[in-house]
This record gives sequence, structure tokens and C-alpha cells, in this order.
Amino acid sequence: MKISMNDFVASVDLGGTNLRVAAVDDGGTILDERRIPTQVERGRDDVIERMCDLILDLSSDLRKKKRRLAGVGVGVPGLVYYHRELHESPNFPGKGYFPVKAKMEKILPVEVIVDNDANVAALGEVWKGAARGFRNASLLTLGTGVGCGIVLEGKIWSGTRGTAAETGHMIVDPNGELCNCGSYGCAETYASAPWVVRRARAAADRGESAFLKKLFRENDKATAADIFRLARTGDPASRGIYQLVGWALGIVIANLTNVLDLEKYIIGGGVAKAWGAFAPFMMREVFARSYVYRAEKMPIVRSRLIDRAGLLGAAHMVWQRLGR
Amino acid sequence: MKISMNDFVASVDLGGTNLRVAAVDDGGTILDERRIPTQVERGRDDVIERMCDLILDLSSDLRKKKRRLAGVGVGVPGLVYYHRELHESPNFPGKGYFPVKAKMEKILPVEVIVDNDANVAALGEVWKGAARGFRNASLLTLGTGVGCGIVLEGKIWSGTRGTAAETGHMIVDPNGELCNCGSYGCAETYASAPWVVRRARAAADRGESAFLKKLFRENDKATAADIFRLARTGDPASRGIYQLVGWALGIVIANLTNVLDLEKYIIGGGVAKAWGAFAPFMMREVFARSYVYRAEKMPIVRSRLIDRAGLLGAAHMVWQRLGR
Repeated sequence: MKISMNDFVASVDLGGTNLRVAAVDDGGTILDERRIPTQVERGRDDVIERMCDLILDLSSDLRKKKRRLAGVGVGVPGLVYYHRELHESPNFPGKGYFPVKAKMEKILPVEVIVDNDANVAALGEVWKGAARGFRNASLLTLGTGVGCGIVLEGKIWSGTRGTAAETGHMIVDPNGELCNCGSYGCAETYASAPWVVRRARAAADRGESAFLKKLFRENDKATAADIFRLARTGDPASRGIYQLVGWALGIVIANLTNVLDLEKYIIGGGVAKAWGAFAPFMMREVFARSYVYRAEKMPIVRSRLIDRAGLLGAAHMVWQRLGR
Repeated sequence: MKISMNDFVASVDLGGTNLRVAAVDDGGTILDERRIPTQVERGRDDVIERMCDLILDLSSDLRKKKRRLAGVGVGVPGLVYYHRELHESPNFPGKGYFPVKAKMEKILPVEVIVDNDANVAALGEVWKGAARGFRNASLLTLGTGVGCGIVLEGKIWSGTRGTAAETGHMIVDPNGELCNCGSYGCAETYASAPWVVRRARAAADRGESAFLKKLFRENDKATAADIFRLARTGDPASRGIYQLVGWALGIVIANLTNVLDLEKYIIGGGVAKAWGAFAPFMMREVFARSYVYRAEKMPIVRSRLIDRAGLLGAAHMVWQRLGR
């Protein structure tokens, strides 16, 4: 298919709560955007159908403006094998592999490229965000887990099977806590929101902080943001937990530096809002532990696109495939 | 310069003891090979001069057979910035940056490409060795230090500045021993020859092994190979040290798996001869800790080219640059 000036690509950000679709031109302008609740409980096939309906709706509206759909890019949480199949994603409940690409291409008239949500978000940050103008960068998203995307020479590095950049499971301390993945001391057991809460709850239970004790007594659903608030007001136990977040991220970024020698490391996700509480410890650890960056400018920045990173990155991934 | 069938490239393996030069054709055949002692004590410029003399000698001999030098590839230990400058290599003593490429190109009539010795060795293993037929692989060389080369999509990944694949300084245990690099618990503090000896000596001093005690009493210069021999005969302390080597390598390879999702991980270098003593522990650790490889075939193999990996890899690096 020959690509014309009036083409657009549809990009999808399939989150746990919202399913978002955007129409993006090759300059990175979002022409239109739609969102509906994901409603995973209705099953995988239903999500696929509603996602495609949304894309077709958007396309039909834009066709009236003489704009044509040229491709579809999808960012989805979980392991995506060979840009095709999703393996046991929390946002697509169900056992085994699920052929997202094939299912969507049965409904849609164009090629569909699927990748991990953090991978496409990293590409978004390189295209239009915090790493704009750089070719080698990594994004760490601190949320329910620790997501990661790696961009090398301007393109997503998905690995041989598509499962690269699972940096949330990089081992920070081999004697650390048991992670969901079966290993111990993964980055995720320090820098994800549930683990911040879990460590705060443990500190409260151990009687290390009257503030944390009060917090959990009054609100059993207290969040990482609540604990950040306590850290800011000076509660030593809460500060210690974010210090640990920074320490763990510092070790991860030192390792990425030594292994990949990138230009920018970007921190995003909900927990990144606590930047002030963890960043100094992160910087200190990177400085002390990265063999080669030692004397240079610290290349760690905050995410700039926030919730548009995934939509823009998924679109850029498709534009790259189309040769733009 | 147009490349013809009769062209060859000269590749250099600049080791601490020997300086080796080979003439390699684009099929990977070594047409000729020379070696002289490196003699680093004579200074950096002297090494450069003798290296270039050797290449010019080789070229002049091959010219009689109608073969023409098309380029030069150099593998050298240490940090190589931007394929040009060497930073404080043990084999090139002297302070600060040393412009290997520029110095050599002043003497030689062709382009010179410089990269880290482990990087080019990894490319050699992908071209003609243990990872032949694969596009994404990493080589770990266990010697005086732990060297590493990473090949992505068939090419050396040198990073933004050329300093990638310093995986010897990946952190295995943040609370481990102080490494030369200033960090703690780097891979090198477990899996390099000097650290195997150091841990064995400490075990002997602590009275943990009569065998080790005897070894060091009789031979103050006992090597990692001597300790491997004791491990094979069943000395528990010596076995424990190689178990630790395996454990550390397992954590490193699990991290590389989670971050890069490669097809092959190759283990080379002198310490790799103790394969039987560390490999089972390495495999067990990788299996337990790598999020995505869990159920698949263990992709770890031993180096096949041994001391030709660097020469072949450096040659292939040049052939790639020349478009072959």
C-alpha cells in the first residue's frame, strides 16, 4: 500500500481501566482520540471486538476528512511474543497464548503491530518526549509493576522473541523478597506501587512509624501516594521506603549503563510522582556503581508525555514499519 | 574503495602477552597469521608502531599473491570510546585517552576500526563459532576480569559511546565485595580468575580446607585452574567457590535474558575450563530467576573459537563496515 500525506495510523493503549484509541499522523499530531472502559471481565474476544469497533469508528469519521487508515499499533501490558501473541496479561485474563495480532487483522483492513505497553511508551518518549533527539534510551514505568522499554538506534528493542526489557525483573538483591515471577529481590519488589505499600504496612506492623500505623488504621486501601505524603512531612519510615526505591532504581540504571550504554534513562509511572523522595538516592547509587558514567552528566530524567507516551509510541512504531 | 574478491582485512588481537595479527578473507578463512610479544613496557606508541609494522609486513607478503588490504579491525582490552580512543587499558599503560584509531591511520593506508576485545570476540562467535546462525548473542569471557560482548541483529552493540557490554560490572549482590571499579558485588568479584584465587586463599586462611592450605603453602602463585583441580577431587571449599561462580553467572545471564532476550549466551575465557564445576549452578540459577526463559531450552553454551574468536570477530566487524 502506498502511503500518502493524508494517511494516519491508529494506536491503541490497552490499560487495565481504559482502552484508548488515537489517530496519529506521521508528524506526531493526535488527530482524534477515543476511550472506553476496558472491561476485561467480559473476556478477551470481547475486548478485541470493542477495540476494533473503536478503530473502525474513528477511521470512518476521519474518512469524511479524506484521511485513510494506514496501520494499527497496539501497546498492551504483559509479554508479547513475536509481536503477535500475548502471554497471560493481567489486562487480558485467560490461560496461555492469545493471538492479538491475528484476531485484530481478521477484523481490520490493515496490518496490526503489537508490542508491550512499556516498549511503545519508551518509543513515544524518544519520538516526542523526554528523550527526543536521542537514539538510545530506556523508560522505566513505576506502577502496579515496573515496566520497561528499551529503544536502540531509534527503534524498540523487543528481543529475539519480543520479551526483552523485562527490567522490572532485573535482580537488585539476590537475597531480597520473593517476587511474583518466582525470583527474589527483583526491581519490582522495591519500586512498584504495591511493594511501596507492602513495605510501609510491614513498617507499621513492626511499630516503626506512628504515622504509618495511623494511615493504615484509617485507610486500609492507602496508596504509594499517601506514603509519599508522609515521607514529605518527614516520617523517617516512609522516607526510608522511598530511599529504598531510589537505591533499587540506581542499581538497575547502573546495570543498564554498564550493559547498554544508553543516552537517556527516563522514569515514569505513578510512583515517579514521588521523584523528590527517591531521586537523590537513585542518582547517588548510579554515580557510585556505574563503571563508565562516573564523571559525566547524570542522564536520568522524568517522563514528559505521561499518558500520551504509549499512544504516540505505538503510532511511531507503525510509521517506522511503513517506512516513515 | 571498491572491494574485490581478492581483498582481505587485517585483524589484531592485542593481548597482554601477545600481539597477534591475522589476514582474513570475507568467508572467514585465515590466510596468514603473525604474533609478537606485546611488550607494553615499551610504551603505547611503540606498541602502535610494531602493530602497524606487522600489518604492513603481512600486507606486503600477501600483495605478492595479488591480495589487497581492505581495512583493519582491532580488538583491545579496556574501554574504547567511539571506536576511536582507548581509556586506560591495562595493555596500554598510560593516563587518559589514547587515540588508537588516529595513530594507526597515520601509518596505515586503510580505515581502522577499534573495539573492545570481548566485543569483537562475541562477533567472532556469532560469525563462525558457538552462536553461528544466530543474530542475538552475548559472550562472557572469564579471565583476569569478566569481559563481555553483545551482538544484536548480527552486529556488535557498542552503545552510545562505545562502552557497552561492561557486564563484568553488573551488580550480582549489592552487598558483595568491593570491586576495582568502585562498586560492590560486581560479576567480576565472583567469576574472574583473580577472585577465584582470592576467595580460595581466604577460605584457606579461615581454615576451611586443608587442601587449599597445602596448595597455597606449596605454591604462592596457585591459579584458578589449581583450585578447579581441587574442586574436581572433591574438596568442599573449592567446590563452594566454583558454585559461587555459577551462582553469579546465573544471575548475570538471568538479567541479560530479562533485559535483552538473546538467543545464545556463550561462556569463554580461562575460567570456563572449570565448566563442570560451575555450570550446573549457573543453569539452576538462570532457570529459577529468568522471568521468560523458564520453560525453554537453556541457551547457554561454551565458546568454540577460543583464541581465534577475537581475530575472526575483528575481521568480520571490518567486512560488515565494507558492506560484506
